[in-house]
Amino acid sequence: MAGQRADARRNYAHILEVAQEEVAAYGADASLERIARVAGVGSATVRRHFPGRRALLEAVFREQTETLCVHARELMGRSDPRAALLDWLDALAAYIASARGLAVTLLPDGMVDEDRGTSCSTELSMAAQPLVQRAAQAGAVASGVTATDLITLIVGIVLATENCSDPAAETSRLLALALNGVSPRT
Amino acid sequence: MAGQRADARRNYAHILEVAQEEVAAYGADASLERIARVAGVGSATVRRHFPGRRALLEAVFREQTETLCVHARELMGRSDPRAALLDWLDALAAYIASARGLAVTLLPDGMVDEDRGTSCSTELSMAAQPLVQRAAQAGAVASGVTATDLITLIVGIVLATENCSDPAAETSRLLALALNGVSPRT
Repeated sequence: MAGQRADARRNYAHILEVAQEEVAAYGADASLERIARVAGVGSATVRRHFPGRRALLEAVFREQTETLCVHARELMGRSDPRAALLDWLDALAAYIASARGLAVTLLPDGMVDEDRGTSCSTELSMAAQPLVQRAAQAGAVASGVTATDLITLIVGIVLATENCSDPAAETSRLLALALNGVSPRT
Repeated sequence: MAGQRADARRNYAHILEVAQEEVAAYGADASLERIARVAGVGSATVRRHFPGRRALLEAVFREQTETLCVHARELMGRSDPRAALLDWLDALAAYIASARGLAVTLLPDGMVDEDRGTSCSTELSMAAQPLVQRAAQAGAVASGVTATDLITLIVGIVLATENCSDPAAETSRLLALALNGVSPRT
């Protein structure tokens, strides 16, 4: 039994590694059949570990999501609440722009009925919310703005600039525009 | 010959009408085969009028694009340059959020090698640029910001909020946030 469990864990780790490579190469539409073939397992085995495409994408981006969450908690130690929030948003935008398939994974999924549970999106929102609240208390962010709002805004900017010649630069430029305001009230 | 040309025009108008209904129902992924079937013509006839999906989408949204361009020119008559620009951006956002398939049609298409020519995206940018320039001259918009930047930002917000329970309301709220600034420099 212990040997079977160890086999299953190795199997899972191997499929996940292949999935990470395939999603990096082909984005959120990476073929589940191809992942099974490259990993040398059957489609049923992939489906047993990952009941759907979203479950697979969530697993692919889990580790980096955790790194971004840790970064958010560390930035709570920074004395300037505005600078801390903006630093985190820049880091998030740079990572989403660089990681094929992540923007789509973070989209609100009103149409999908899988239970998201602790999705990457929920984890990022929860980790960033204290940064947003602290910035709001310092008057640097309008009250009522949530971490989810800011993540949605960044995901949108990444999606809209994906086909540009330099997506990361365009994402960064449009995010700065939205942060400073296209036309702030004077 | 004149009769043949009139037939071709009626044919085109009929296919376009069907395409508008199918795109309204199924978005940018509407099936070209289904459009041909519903219109009662062969796939080859659809392809002769619309050499690809993008050409079809551009045609579907041509009329409303023209209406938005006329609106931009009319708003140049408004005395307040900031209010004129913001009114137009709100109108654009409301329309993109309501018209399935339009956001994708307006995406920059670095990956597509069809000649866009006078695409909906280019027409909207050209019509709105004077509004942006006038607002910049009045100090209401940072210099260097282009109409294309603002359209891209709005397209991104629409794409990121498509699956929300009330996409139009979310689009409007996040656009206001980006216009006023998440965290304007003080």
